[in-house]
Amino acid sequence: MTRTPLADRLEPVPLADVAIDDAFWNDRLETNREVTLEHQYDQLGERSLENFRRVRDGETSGFQGMWFEDSDTYKWLEAASYVLATHDDPELKERVDEVIDLVAAAQEENGYLNTYFTLEEPENRWTNLNMMHELYCAGHLFEAAVAHHRATGEDSLLDVATAFADHIDDVFGTGEDDLDGVPGHEGIELALVKLYRVTSEERYRDLAQYFVDRRGRENSRLEWETTHPDETGGDVPPDIFLEDGEWDGSYAQAHKPIREQETVEGHSVRAMYLYSGVADLVAETGEGELYETLETLWSNMTTKRMYLTGGIGPESAHEGFTVDYDLRNRTAYAETCAAIGSVFWNHRMFQLTGEARFYDVLERALYNGVLAGVSLDGTEFFYENPLESLGHHHRKGWFQCACCPPNVARLFASLGEYVYAQGPEDDVYVNLYVGGEADIDVDGEDVTLTQETDYPWGESTTVGVETDAPIETTLHVRVPEWCEDVAVSLNGEALDVDPDAGYVSVDREWTGGDSLTLDFALPVKRMVAHPNVPDDADRVAFQRGPLVYCVEETDLDVAPSHLRIDPEADVETRAAADLLDGVHTIEGDARAVTNDEWGDDLYREYGETAGEETEATVTAIPYYGWDNREEGRMRVWLPTD
Amino acid sequence: MTRTPLADRLEPVPLADVAIDDAFWNDRLETNREVTLEHQYDQLGERSLENFRRVRDGETSGFQGMWFEDSDTYKWLEAASYVLATHDDPELKERVDEVIDLVAAAQEENGYLNTYFTLEEPENRWTNLNMMHELYCAGHLFEAAVAHHRATGEDSLLDVATAFADHIDDVFGTGEDDLDGVPGHEGIELALVKLYRVTSEERYRDLAQYFVDRRGRENSRLEWETTHPDETGGDVPPDIFLEDGEWDGSYAQAHKPIREQETVEGHSVRAMYLYSGVADLVAETGEGELYETLETLWSNMTTKRMYLTGGIGPESAHEGFTVDYDLRNRTAYAETCAAIGSVFWNHRMFQLTGEARFYDVLERALYNGVLAGVSLDGTEFFYENPLESLGHHHRKGWFQCACCPPNVARLFASLGEYVYAQGPEDDVYVNLYVGGEADIDVDGEDVTLTQETDYPWGESTTVGVETDAPIETTLHVRVPEWCEDVAVSLNGEALDVDPDAGYVSVDREWTGGDSLTLDFALPVKRMVAHPNVPDDADRVAFQRGPLVYCVEETDLDVAPSHLRIDPEADVETRAAADLLDGVHTIEGDARAVTNDEWGDDLYREYGETAGEETEATVTAIPYYGWDNREEGRMRVWLPTD
Repeated sequence: MTRTPLADRLEPVPLADVAIDDAFWNDRLETNREVTLEHQYDQLGERSLENFRRVRDGETSGFQGMWFEDSDTYKWLEAASYVLATHDDPELKERVDEVIDLVAAAQEENGYLNTYFTLEEPENRWTNLNMMHELYCAGHLFEAAVAHHRATGEDSLLDVATAFADHIDDVFGTGEDDLDGVPGHEGIELALVKLYRVTSEERYRDLAQYFVDRRGRENSRLEWETTHPDETGGDVPPDIFLEDGEWDGSYAQAHKPIREQETVEGHSVRAMYLYSGVADLVAETGEGELYETLETLWSNMTTKRMYLTGGIGPESAHEGFTVDYDLRNRTAYAETCAAIGSVFWNHRMFQLTGEARFYDVLERALYNGVLAGVSLDGTEFFYENPLESLGHHHRKGWFQCACCPPNVARLFASLGEYVYAQGPEDDVYVNLYVGGEADIDVDGEDVTLTQETDYPWGESTTVGVETDAPIETTLHVRVPEWCEDVAVSLNGEALDVDPDAGYVSVDREWTGGDSLTLDFALPVKRMVAHPNVPDDADRVAFQRGPLVYCVEETDLDVAPSHLRIDPEADVETRAAADLLDGVHTIEGDARAVTNDEWGDDLYREYGETAGEETEATVTAIPYYGWDNREEGRMRVWLPTD
Repeated sequence: MTRTPLADRLEPVPLADVAIDDAFWNDRLETNREVTLEHQYDQLGERSLENFRRVRDGETSGFQGMWFEDSDTYKWLEAASYVLATHDDPELKERVDEVIDLVAAAQEENGYLNTYFTLEEPENRWTNLNMMHELYCAGHLFEAAVAHHRATGEDSLLDVATAFADHIDDVFGTGEDDLDGVPGHEGIELALVKLYRVTSEERYRDLAQYFVDRRGRENSRLEWETTHPDETGGDVPPDIFLEDGEWDGSYAQAHKPIREQETVEGHSVRAMYLYSGVADLVAETGEGELYETLETLWSNMTTKRMYLTGGIGPESAHEGFTVDYDLRNRTAYAETCAAIGSVFWNHRMFQLTGEARFYDVLERALYNGVLAGVSLDGTEFFYENPLESLGHHHRKGWFQCACCPPNVARLFASLGEYVYAQGPEDDVYVNLYVGGEADIDVDGEDVTLTQETDYPWGESTTVGVETDAPIETTLHVRVPEWCEDVAVSLNGEALDVDPDAGYVSVDREWTGGDSLTLDFALPVKRMVAHPNVPDDADRVAFQRGPLVYCVEETDLDVAPSHLRIDPEADVETRAAADLLDGVHTIEGDARAVTNDEWGDDLYREYGETAGEETEATVTAIPYYGWDNREEGRMRVWLPTD
């Protein structure tokens, strides 16, 4: 079933060709465009844009914010460009052009572009690859430039990007006069492949390959820097690369060559960006060994190091992975950006293979780990996404290190690109249930795919085909991993399908008006974790469709930690239109361990006061909606009774 | 029952008058003297002592290590002085004198003494009270000086301390020309009271009172520093005092005046040192309001924020307290120094009140949270003391921030001071079961108390009285909180006692050869936590006597997380002389959830693969002994079946 990468690479239906009109997503995407992006632009003005202005005006000091602040502007530009690809918005276009002018004006003659170093330490460029993030910022510039070019056809930002990419290509390499190093924070690899795909300039692809191939080699530049702190620029010494005083590159996946890596390690956003770039290279080169590495890493992550919410990276100290089955709940880091990174990586893994399992992981992350990252009103953000809270973890308006909000914004603004794909023989994939339509080309014929759905709440989705001439193709409609029972009908006639196949694939001649309807069973599932996960032992979590549920104190008559669930007890779902912008809740009987008699003792001998079990009710809401009401305790995994 | 503080203050029987000869402690204390202290001295040579040498030699740069590195030398001097108080060791004495000479040579003419500022930023003294720890280091100097003076009668280090204390007293205060500030890291308060007690110089006590009283006031110097980073010296900006960009002094208990504080907050070592200093002031001044504050804080800590091991402070990011009932196990911070700080504080609370409950907490911390901090061979140390491990948490030989190892060393070296106490009417307290003898004075009569015990393993302890003349006094022998059944006999005659009274108190005329024998029942207890503690729900922990137990993977036939315990099942204790320098293990039948059929899925629907329960055995070892054998998983709290 595994296809040979390269030969069969699939392509997303481009963002500009997908129109979303969906009950679940419309409000979120509108809020993203109208509120979140605006909010982010306001934040840029005081810090990131100010840095570009200072460079433009020839100042030589006064840098504001984090040393990689430039990336915030680039991420905003990328998100805004996605909006321009799908929405006519002259005001936004003008603002984007102004920001691009600022960015272009801050570029040095040789192509170098980084306001921190230009303002503060021009002599120290490229001296602290571990921590100072020049290549990481460059990557975000390239991604913004590609998005802008694709949305507008214009080259204003693309010219800035290619000039900087050319400069980087001059500086880095294995030649005698080259700097032989790789980024401490990955991201430029995937960005260079994007740049290559738009410009057809093979040097960019080769530079990405260089960064991937040189990573994790012995006696690397990254290692050298940690032992030569006096020769590294910037404020941030690379101490986090030291373990007991010795070099340990695992923080940035540089502990060994990528082809020898078997477990996902280190800073999880860096890991996702690296693996995404590697997948892009595999798509270009078809290298089997790299592909097998990705499969090994993916298997490790998805079977041992991923939360039920699709979140990854439990440890806050290094924002990353630890060991197999360490899935701590209340102190989970599970950075929003890492879940987004998982979306990026899984999107690419699907494109390499056409396999639905990657979209299963993508969807889990999207509807849970990512969606929880932003408040319903679009103005507050989680950096960390624990699966349990004692009531003191809340979204914030912005962060000192503001990577998550603009990352959410750019993903949401490009959501259309994740819905449909086409294979090399023009066969068509419907991967996410998001209402709207997509314009595609099948054998030279203009076809419109329509999708009507009330996913993730309702049970029915209809995919329609509008075409003037009949077309011969295969339509693959994804059947999610969580679905065990689906009724499929073609123009009203029942089809016999295997829900475990990943896709309902219908190969036929399609004429205008044809439609495929899928009716999912959407039961409430009580999920359990692998017995090796200590933190979820004897616990269940509710899931319905792609949505993981949690309980919030405000909906309960007891503290969440006092609830005990009978996994076999009946529960009901209830459509609550006024709750959290409209959700379906899960409700049922439960038990509670009460403690009226306990008193103050923190510890007692067993049996002294047998905890009394009383009747209680449980109301669960989708995890993505938590912390949008009054402060209170929350948990996803509930002890069984 | 609560005594009026001040009037009834109790005094420890001084260290020099207590000789320890105890099966449990002898090896630990010898290792502390012979190995740990030596190991620490070696470490000092490369960093802390080098700084003193550089100042002595007139250098003006080259500071080594953390900015508060001086405190390591002071803590070593303090610990070494305790050894000198109890052991004749001319070599050590010579080494101590050499180090004191170095310290004295680094002191400036006006009394100021801090090698970081003298070497690196002489112009920036006292400009960053939040983070640069000048007052904290001074406190450790004072403690070392008092210990040295008490051990040797010499003034060589005491003169250095008083000169610096006088300088600090000149600099700080509320007068017009004074710097009105308090330390970001407490410790000097208790040290100043020690200095006052040795010198009778009331200014030192008053300066401690000033630091306590000014703490947490509005518009403080600490707050001012956070908004004037350009005017603060040192490398470490006080960012940790900011919450969302706003001042929040809770990290250092400076969020409100101490008399208004009701919960233990912030960095837990700082908190313990502050409360210890406050208790010392209460002992001197008898202030009721401050005493009530301590009772409130103690109640909050011991009923809502303390691990079963006596560890405190669950959160690593700020090394401290969070919220009530947040007692995360695997990611517990529970710094060794914080447990030691709890020993310091509870020791003082006992001295104020004569109440056994403070020794119950002290003993819990000492035998578990503290003792686990050092390896059996005395050369490796835990900074963090989680109650569960996936096998990747290990002691280390030293730390970049090396506060814990010397703190363990000074506590162990002064253990004798924690065993006995005397009340104002010469009544005598036996607070810890540690074999040996103590020379005390009762109404002018020289008396020797002897103690024979095989605590914490065995059930019998005998306290003997040796005196030439009969003495009329009350002997109070502590009955630990964990003990519910104790048989007490006086010279072989049974006494009727209430095990819940805290002490067996026998008021009589004692003659030489009298003895009081206590036979404790030492059953294995299955402890449970308050139902509000989410992480311990449906779990039990074994405890026997003062020792909390854990399971280590190496002793089990299944992974620790697969074990299920029947809290009512029988278990046995077994003396294992060859195991971990000799421990009693707890052994019994258990169940295990096996997962042979599970496969790779990380998550599944409940019921798909019912976890099968199989028979297993459980072997538990004392928590203090974990991570002294091969690497493996560990846990204290075990799920019930």
